[in-house]
Amino acid sequence: MVNINDSVLERFIDEDVPYIDLTSHILGIEEQSGSISYIARENICVCGTEEVKKIFDKYDLEVLNYKRSGTFLKKGEVLLQAKGRADALHLVWKVCVNILENASGVATRVQKFVESAKDVNPKVEIVTTRKIFPGTKQLATKAVLVGGAYPHRLGLGESILVFEEHLRFYGGLDKFIDNLKELKQKACEKMIAVEAHNIEDALKLAKANVDIIQLDKFSIEDLKTAVKQIKEISPNTRISAAGGINMQNVKEISACGADLLVTSSLYFGKPADIKADIQLLR
Amino acid sequence: MVNINDSVLERFIDEDVPYIDLTSHILGIEEQSGSISYIARENICVCGTEEVKKIFDKYDLEVLNYKRSGTFLKKGEVLLQAKGRADALHLVWKVCVNILENASGVATRVQKFVESAKDVNPKVEIVTTRKIFPGTKQLATKAVLVGGAYPHRLGLGESILVFEEHLRFYGGLDKFIDNLKELKQKACEKMIAVEAHNIEDALKLAKANVDIIQLDKFSIEDLKTAVKQIKEISPNTRISAAGGINMQNVKEISACGADLLVTSSLYFGKPADIKADIQLLR
Amino acid sequence: MVNINDSVLERFIDEDVPYIDLTSHILGIEEQSGSISYIARENICVCGTEEVKKIFDKYDLEVLNYKRSGTFLKKGEVLLQAKGRADALHLVWKVCVNILENASGVATRVQKFVESAKDVNPKVEIVTTRKIFPGTKQLATKAVLVGGAYPHRLGLGESILVFEEHLRFYGGLDKFIDNLKELKQKACEKMIAVEAHNIEDALKLAKANVDIIQLDKFSIEDLKTAVKQIKEISPNTRISAAGGINMQNVKEISACGADLLVTSSLYFGKPADIKADIQLLR
Amino acid sequence: MVNINDSVLERFIDEDVPYIDLTSHILGIEEQSGSISYIARENICVCGTEEVKKIFDKYDLEVLNYKRSGTFLKKGEVLLQAKGRADALHLVWKVCVNILENASGVATRVQKFVESAKDVNPKVEIVTTRKIFPGTKQLATKAVLVGGAYPHRLGLGESILVFEEHLRFYGGLDKFIDNLKELKQKACEKMIAVEAHNIEDALKLAKANVDIIQLDKFSIEDLKTAVKQIKEISPNTRISAAGGINMQNVKEISACGADLLVTSSLYFGKPADIKADIQLLR
Amino acid sequence: MVNINDSVLERFIDEDVPYIDLTSHILGIEEQSGSISYIARENICVCGTEEVKKIFDKYDLEVLNYKRSGTFLKKGEVLLQAKGRADALHLVWKVCVNILENASGVATRVQKFVESAKDVNPKVEIVTTRKIFPGTKQLATKAVLVGGAYPHRLGLGESILVFEEHLRFYGGLDKFIDNLKELKQKACEKMIAVEAHNIEDALKLAKANVDIIQLDKFSIEDLKTAVKQIKEISPNTRISAAGGINMQNVKEISACGADLLVTSSLYFGKPADIKADIQLLR
Amino acid sequence: MVNINDSVLERFIDEDVPYIDLTSHILGIEEQSGSISYIARENICVCGTEEVKKIFDKYDLEVLNYKRSGTFLKKGEVLLQAKGRADALHLVWKVCVNILENASGVATRVQKFVESAKDVNPKVEIVTTRKIFPGTKQLATKAVLVGGAYPHRLGLGESILVFEEHLRFYGGLDKFIDNLKELKQKACEKMIAVEAHNIEDALKLAKANVDIIQLDKFSIEDLKTAVKQIKEISPNTRISAAGGINMQNVKEISACGADLLVTSSLYFGKPADIKADIQLLR
Repeated sequence: MVNINDSVLERFIDEDVPYIDLTSHILGIEEQSGSISYIARENICVCGTEEVKKIFDKYDLEVLNYKRSGTFLKKGEVLLQAKGRADALHLVWKVCVNILENASGVATRVQKFVESAKDVNPKVEIVTTRKIFPGTKQLATKAVLVGGAYPHRLGLGESILVFEEHLRFYGGLDKFIDNLKELKQKACEKMIAVEAHNIEDALKLAKANVDIIQLDKFSIEDLKTAVKQIKEISPNTRISAAGGINMQNVKEISACGADLLVTSSLYFGKPADIKADIQLLR
Repeated sequence: MVNINDSVLERFIDEDVPYIDLTSHILGIEEQSGSISYIARENICVCGTEEVKKIFDKYDLEVLNYKRSGTFLKKGEVLLQAKGRADALHLVWKVCVNILENASGVATRVQKFVESAKDVNPKVEIVTTRKIFPGTKQLATKAVLVGGAYPHRLGLGESILVFEEHLRFYGGLDKFIDNLKELKQKACEKMIAVEAHNIEDALKLAKANVDIIQLDKFSIEDLKTAVKQIKEISPNTRISAAGGINMQNVKEISACGADLLVTSSLYFGKPADIKADIQLLR
Repeated sequence: MVNINDSVLERFIDEDVPYIDLTSHILGIEEQSGSISYIARENICVCGTEEVKKIFDKYDLEVLNYKRSGTFLKKGEVLLQAKGRADALHLVWKVCVNILENASGVATRVQKFVESAKDVNPKVEIVTTRKIFPGTKQLATKAVLVGGAYPHRLGLGESILVFEEHLRFYGGLDKFIDNLKELKQKACEKMIAVEAHNIEDALKLAKANVDIIQLDKFSIEDLKTAVKQIKEISPNTRISAAGGINMQNVKEISACGADLLVTSSLYFGKPADIKADIQLLR
Repeated sequence: MVNINDSVLERFIDEDVPYIDLTSHILGIEEQSGSISYIARENICVCGTEEVKKIFDKYDLEVLNYKRSGTFLKKGEVLLQAKGRADALHLVWKVCVNILENASGVATRVQKFVESAKDVNPKVEIVTTRKIFPGTKQLATKAVLVGGAYPHRLGLGESILVFEEHLRFYGGLDKFIDNLKELKQKACEKMIAVEAHNIEDALKLAKANVDIIQLDKFSIEDLKTAVKQIKEISPNTRISAAGGINMQNVKEISACGADLLVTSSLYFGKPADIKADIQLLR
Repeated sequence: MVNINDSVLERFIDEDVPYIDLTSHILGIEEQSGSISYIARENICVCGTEEVKKIFDKYDLEVLNYKRSGTFLKKGEVLLQAKGRADALHLVWKVCVNILENASGVATRVQKFVESAKDVNPKVEIVTTRKIFPGTKQLATKAVLVGGAYPHRLGLGESILVFEEHLRFYGGLDKFIDNLKELKQKACEKMIAVEAHNIEDALKLAKANVDIIQLDKFSIEDLKTAVKQIKEISPNTRISAAGGINMQNVKEISACGADLLVTSSLYFGKPADIKADIQLLR
Repeated sequence: MVNINDSVLERFIDEDVPYIDLTSHILGIEEQSGSISYIARENICVCGTEEVKKIFDKYDLEVLNYKRSGTFLKKGEVLLQAKGRADALHLVWKVCVNILENASGVATRVQKFVESAKDVNPKVEIVTTRKIFPGTKQLATKAVLVGGAYPHRLGLGESILVFEEHLRFYGGLDKFIDNLKELKQKACEKMIAVEAHNIEDALKLAKANVDIIQLDKFSIEDLKTAVKQIKEISPNTRISAAGGINMQNVKEISACGADLLVTSSLYFGKPADIKADIQLLR
């Protein structure tokens, strides 16, 4: 259960319909009764129906049934059905399509990606980075979890991930390794992850027994080599692969044996294709 | 100038860094001085630098120079340079990359799309739909305008666009056409646009002199035919083509002669590739 | 249906009762049961009852019945009746009076104004400007629509209305007219409206076939002349009259034949007179 | 100094310009330089310039000079002058007119009302009720204070004012009077005010030495009589007159000798007339 | 009834669970059913159950029963019972403990303090200052009222309390006393309170008949003397004692005879001890 | 650098001064000039000065100097000095005292606690729980970090901490231990922490090589025994001690050798004692 509060949902609605559906108003169709069904136009992993239900409740539209986020639907199956006044139906129609298509789009991509990755390495886990489109954090996070991956970190304050950009201010990698024991003690509830850009650094970090080594933009060859050698040196160190991993190369990379794959690619791409079928109820 | 207020920017920051950069804190590098440069890794139409500047100002980081949104940059050119305390630099680093990459990504796609469309029909205009990822309205709208297109409508209350879904409640297309004169009078400051799904309906609407006919998901052949016949019947009626228009088919569709192309495809896709170069200042 | 979200209603309540009704608290009457009826003290066009109902729901007060916004009520008729705990009743009492009196006040003025205008020119439409008291946008917009008029534009980004103040930066009216065709093409989903301050400019604009000419502060004589001549020159151009139109002069101005009247005067004036009758339930 | 925070001002701007000034954008005049002067078209008590200055600062417009709220200006005098980019000027133009006209409108009415009331009774004070247009609390409160009156109470939790509607739940006026001493003790930092609808009740309350008696909708004759008799019975009891007091009858009512006059009438009425003069700067 | 709106409650939840309960998610226990009981581990004056109920409602958890704020519970008694999905239960669990423990903690301290104070002086009233932990205003205010005290003032704009720091800008105490009559007239709906730091000033103020004298940090001896002499000089002047009053010294200070005691000490201290008992429902 | 955004600070100000300082207004001292110094009345670890500086900037008060959060000040030393208009000084005075006293109070307690704990076990780390007073998250988190401890977890979604309450839904501790390897893999970027209530469970968990064992409410004897035995069984497992740890028992508990101590006690207690010295500037 992902906590997306009412003020977030109200912001979504206000983005799309700050005041009214002028077309319904001009046509004078507001008081009639109608039904709406959201129907998958392709196979999808549903996401966002709980939020749509909350929005429908707010506008006194009666939700007749819905599939919970995480359900796999085939083309033609129904996500949610509701009925109520025509003005309310037209008001919420598209913002709810936007929620469902975008959230389900991410969830579906995540699900496929996780499946592909696990297909060649059943133990691998997928985590998604902080590189969201600003403003989409709650919905994107829900979609990532629903699809079967995890957020890498939900805020910059929740984990320790040392980039080269930090080390420049710290005095370099060697100084960091010298002090690692002390740093681990200071941060004793957290794993310490360090990004490495080449095999040499990765092995130094393995020798130092760092908790997680994040191998950034390694070639397939280097990645294989690095994973093998790190595991020999420090069996408990977790290895993550990051940088440019996407649906095309995920199998090849997953096969290299890293414990987790870090990707930003799943946030972006076509929304799921979902139809809204609106009918007059007499 | 697109109005993106401070509370929107604060929300973006809070999404990424609700409290601190724990890594910088644990490493104890907070009080050092550093510089940051955001550099294009590919040719882009810049968008979002004004927002990044505002964020840098908030964190007492000195912006040394920046390119205004709408500037075209070649790979390797700099979007913005700044300097200040290391903790502040690390705090704003990624959320500002996210703003720049996503906004510039949309703006660059829009710019290319507009160029492609006008290449074959210099008079065509591009408008983007309401189908955003919820939460991205302000930034996406800025990117659309900066890239040279227009938002189709910023809210459901600002224009009249009659869908089949409205007509089902109204009594059908013929009744609508019968009453069109009266409706035009009621909405006399607005154009009345109607979506048509086939040539027959489109020509009915042309005969009725509706302001805009939106041809939805027409084949290339039908689109050409419809445009030609509508222009003959009602030279002042504007014709928009909508449904599935994207970077791949834009030229072919634009060549059909519609006055405007309506697309959702530009919102989605890879963010622009922008590097953040962070260095220690001694 | 106008979308006034919960956070707007919470703001209204917090304005009036940030914490408690101290008087009820000191008197110790909080747990008793009571009823409330809002009763029209004059003939009104009701507006705001849906919002009051939402507020009552929030405070667990049971709404027994209410008239929808847009209903015409005679003096003595009831807008809404509810019952519940005395502390909740006293807490929401006045903020709900404020909503009902102010929204119904605007709606009633709008309704009378529209009636007066149409009495002499049944085809005229009334639109209200952006000149609201800051903070009242949602409620005022609802009241305008409920009363039978339209908002001129809900945001500065939704329509094109060229003022003299724009032309000063553009290079003047003649340059604008020279470029009008190109501008119309650029903005092809929108009407282009231009404000004219004298007959001469109005006729220039008519010859250029601009979509809407807004005649600002014309004398009755000039208004009549301008309408007649514009219609002759460009029958499709819509003519709006603006500037100082109010309940006193609306008939005289409406009779001049403009297609629409633009006014700010309806936002301001006495609230409708509505009585709250609160009784103890034993 | 009234505290109107940035989020309130951002709300005002967003109401008027959620995204852009489309007209300036279409005309392509955004990057030019211009000046703006807000000029009184009638004698006014200025209110809102501090808020306008804050808004101008936000949009990088340079405020050259301004008159503080509370300044009395003659027709033709300047409230505020600024310069900057044309797009920013057009963006803030009208919302700032709205702030200035509405706040100055209230402040000017308040000032005149206070003057009229004190003209016949220099010791009288004016307080304004909670009956605002919802959404206007901060700006209206500033205008009331700037004009020389006081808000009756800023929230329902800050004072004790016993209405008939409370007494119905309490057990009636006599019971209240019996317990007054104890209630005064409980609320010992607050005055206890009670509304009376007739002379008889007013005198009962005077005998009970209540702190404030609010005489609601008394005729001039009754008001004079009540004031005289209450003062004789309980010289320290303050007397307020309320109900239907407005600019027309304020002198007559003020002359009756009440200590304070309570009115809602000043919130409503025509905004002050303020011109915005925008010019191109070459 | 204290008005704590939904956006405040959402803020509380978001503080604790911005997205999910990761532990429940990883364990895969989300869809099971469970019950929760909040149980007092010590004698308490309950506060916050209405807010917890609202939160439970938001997450579709069924509240089976609860005790209203203000109820006195013995160790082992139940504040609230509910049941529902395991993920929702775990999500709201701790934030609701935090609300109940902190609000009940303050309410219980207030209740004991009031009791102690009244034990030696039944007529004394307790008011609490503005010295809250920022961010706790609504909940702390509720707890104060529920416990039987009053907030000294809910905002700086609701009462007049003259500190030495004001008088430094005004021209000193003597000038203030000279002008007191006029100030009382200006602020005729409010009591005027003045802080005194020594007996001499207190007596000056008594002679001037000020409404309330706040004796700040007086020794027990001085407090007794001051109360006695003020009462002789000006029987209607209310006397408040302030500065360093806490649970230890409240009886001794209350016995000195001041009309009210002003304290900040009740906001701070251990939260009430409340256990959450969560069980699986099969 | 802890990110406390402007809207949080505005909320703090609005809590204390929703509109004005009525006292300054009535006294008419608003336009005078004054200075303010915040001075430690006891030895403190400063926290909150950056926030106070931001507030002073907002109200055009000139901050002359201030000590950064984390500075240790002796009684009598100055935290921050500023000057400006008297109305602004009085408006921000107390809310800034509240920020400084509460944040510094927590920071000072944290600092002492950390010192005490490290005095007997230099390698121990202190983390603070989620049991804040709702509404205080940002400020409390800043104080914890400034004082030298860490937040246990900033949100329920950022770490895995298995309570008995989770295990009841999961199938018990043994099942959990059976599946631990798989759970660790799933959550491979996070440590898995489990709460144990007795030595037996703790040792089971140690044998299973769980990342962190949190020993809840162990007696000193049991704690010592458990630490010793866990370290023997699983040297890499981190041990945290939790439940009832406070300033009185911290040394004794710290001496037991756990790696980290978890406490809620530091959030609560007396605010630091800080004086505001306000003077007239002539």
